[in-house]
Amino acid sequence: MAFVADADAKTQFKWKMVTAWPRNFPGLGSNANLLAKMITDMSGGRIKVKVYGAGEMVPAFEVFDAVSKGTAEMGHAGAYYWKGKSEAVQFFSAVPFGLNAQEMNAWLYYGGGHELWKELYKPFGIIPAPTGNSGVQMAGWFNKEINALDDLKGLKMRIPGLGGEVLRRAGGTTVNMPGGELFTSLQSGTLDATEWVGPYNDLAFGFYKVAKYYYYPGWHEPGSTMEALINEKAFNQLPKDLQHIVMTACKAANMDMISEYTARNNQALDTLVNKHNVKLMPLPDQVIKTLREISEEVVSEVATKSAEAEKIYRSVSTFKQQVIRWSSISEQAFYKARGI
Amino acid sequence: MAFVADADAKTQFKWKMVTAWPRNFPGLGSNANLLAKMITDMSGGRIKVKVYGAGEMVPAFEVFDAVSKGTAEMGHAGAYYWKGKSEAVQFFSAVPFGLNAQEMNAWLYYGGGHELWKELYKPFGIIPAPTGNSGVQMAGWFNKEINALDDLKGLKMRIPGLGGEVLRRAGGTTVNMPGGELFTSLQSGTLDATEWVGPYNDLAFGFYKVAKYYYYPGWHEPGSTMEALINEKAFNQLPKDLQHIVMTACKAANMDMISEYTARNNQALDTLVNKHNVKLMPLPDQVIKTLREISEEVVSEVATKSAEAEKIYRSVSTFKQQVIRWSSISEQAFYKARGI
Repeated sequence: MAFVADADAKTQFKWKMVTAWPRNFPGLGSNANLLAKMITDMSGGRIKVKVYGAGEMVPAFEVFDAVSKGTAEMGHAGAYYWKGKSEAVQFFSAVPFGLNAQEMNAWLYYGGGHELWKELYKPFGIIPAPTGNSGVQMAGWFNKEINALDDLKGLKMRIPGLGGEVLRRAGGTTVNMPGGELFTSLQSGTLDATEWVGPYNDLAFGFYKVAKYYYYPGWHEPGSTMEALINEKAFNQLPKDLQHIVMTACKAANMDMISEYTARNNQALDTLVNKHNVKLMPLPDQVIKTLREISEEVVSEVATKSAEAEKIYRSVSTFKQQVIRWSSISEQAFYKARGI
Repeated sequence: MAFVADADAKTQFKWKMVTAWPRNFPGLGSNANLLAKMITDMSGGRIKVKVYGAGEMVPAFEVFDAVSKGTAEMGHAGAYYWKGKSEAVQFFSAVPFGLNAQEMNAWLYYGGGHELWKELYKPFGIIPAPTGNSGVQMAGWFNKEINALDDLKGLKMRIPGLGGEVLRRAGGTTVNMPGGELFTSLQSGTLDATEWVGPYNDLAFGFYKVAKYYYYPGWHEPGSTMEALINEKAFNQLPKDLQHIVMTACKAANMDMISEYTARNNQALDTLVNKHNVKLMPLPDQVIKTLREISEEVVSEVATKSAEAEKIYRSVSTFKQQVIRWSSISEQAFYKARGI
């Protein structure tokens, strides 16, 4: 018995983390790096986690399969990339007009969301954990003004997940492609518009060089959750203390990312507006209203796709109804009070 | 050398954590418990942290001194309780009309706030770390309606920190006392009003039995930060991996508390309003506006108290100016979009 405990405390684990982002990409890649470092540091090097950027070991959209098969022990991505596995995954990344970061984490940690997510990934041999949140994103970059719904008709836009389906029903043509391909697609006219994340990331990709209109708010991704994917078998081979280290590191990384985005977005926004002459514009109320009505339709349809999707939809919808009331007299009322 | 490493990995540390809250108190006491558990679990029991409620080892308001002297290795409290040590501490807990939870964490982790906080506590032999946030609190419980500024005149209210000074200048009489004494003080008429936290905590204290008017938003505590206090000498005796475990656990606990409050507050609010007939009321715009003007005065005066206070004030004020712009086109614009 003493031998086993001793072996446990000395066994070295070498883990690979595949990611859906360019390596070191601000906010996303840097969060993957931080997560890996926290695990390595807290374990005193008993787990060494090596991070791979998109395409270095597997392409961005194969992260899920790589972790499922055990090719990599960990992944770092966003759940909506895997809707081919189950439509229900989308509830764990971004829901149009859904929960913002603070509300999303409340649902995940204290509203039963994380348990439902674990159930959903269980058949794939993956344990998911929230590991970051971008906060409310931007509506995106457009090569023309959006003054009315008609301006969305025929628009070729990169917008993944449920938001993409909403735009399609509003008359647009939606395309999904990894972040690394967006700049050239906008430049070549393959795309008329793209959303990505927010100023901090969008500045790094240089979209301002090929599209001038920058719209807010990000109705389609109000609190996009990033996920850590953990191969279940690899996790089960860890001694208990290292299991706690991996899961707690995800939670700390989750706090870190939203803080990084909140601090960095405004600085980048200033650069975009004042140095690069980007036009910062709100989507018109009527466009917002219609997009919200279509969103409700699209989101509720996801619930009809499977029993698991319905169960998750019911959980998150009930939570949303309740939390909106609290948010309106706390955060929202305070924003108003600060500006009266 | 091998011997040292081996001793490090096997040394047991028994830490005491003194807190400013009743033991197991929802949100606050439970966060202290969680923090202790995460440290113990991640270290495989190499650090065992035992939590003491207020008064069990030292009274609520002596937590800082106990950690400073090393009577306890850790503490769990709110920085504004220590303004007797330095007025500047208040910038690390709650500033009237200041930053909300998301913005506060952005300043602490990515805007230089945590570094300034460490400098401030250094002479006391304490390392501080953010370990939780209540989110926007409620304005408080009142035994009468607040329809105009005149209704604040002569009001005896428990409201600590800078918010208390603002109320005093608005004509009220402010009192500070630990949470455990509030109920009887309201009941006996020693107090006309009290703020505490929000529905989740306020329901637990039973304030609805002795005051019927429940006002929002919590202008005086828009993102109250809870602090972990760590005795520097005790921290320095830990091997590096355990130091990482302690600090990362604080960050994960910080994510946990805001999630708990966001999820639980609305449920408690429903009970208060529908079961206990509490009157939920917004503070009138004119009252808010005047309180904000007085707040700006009070907060800027803190900056004149010492060189360190001025340095911290400049950091947080600059950050606030910038982040307000980003919040207004992201979180605030999204709340609006969800309700158009």
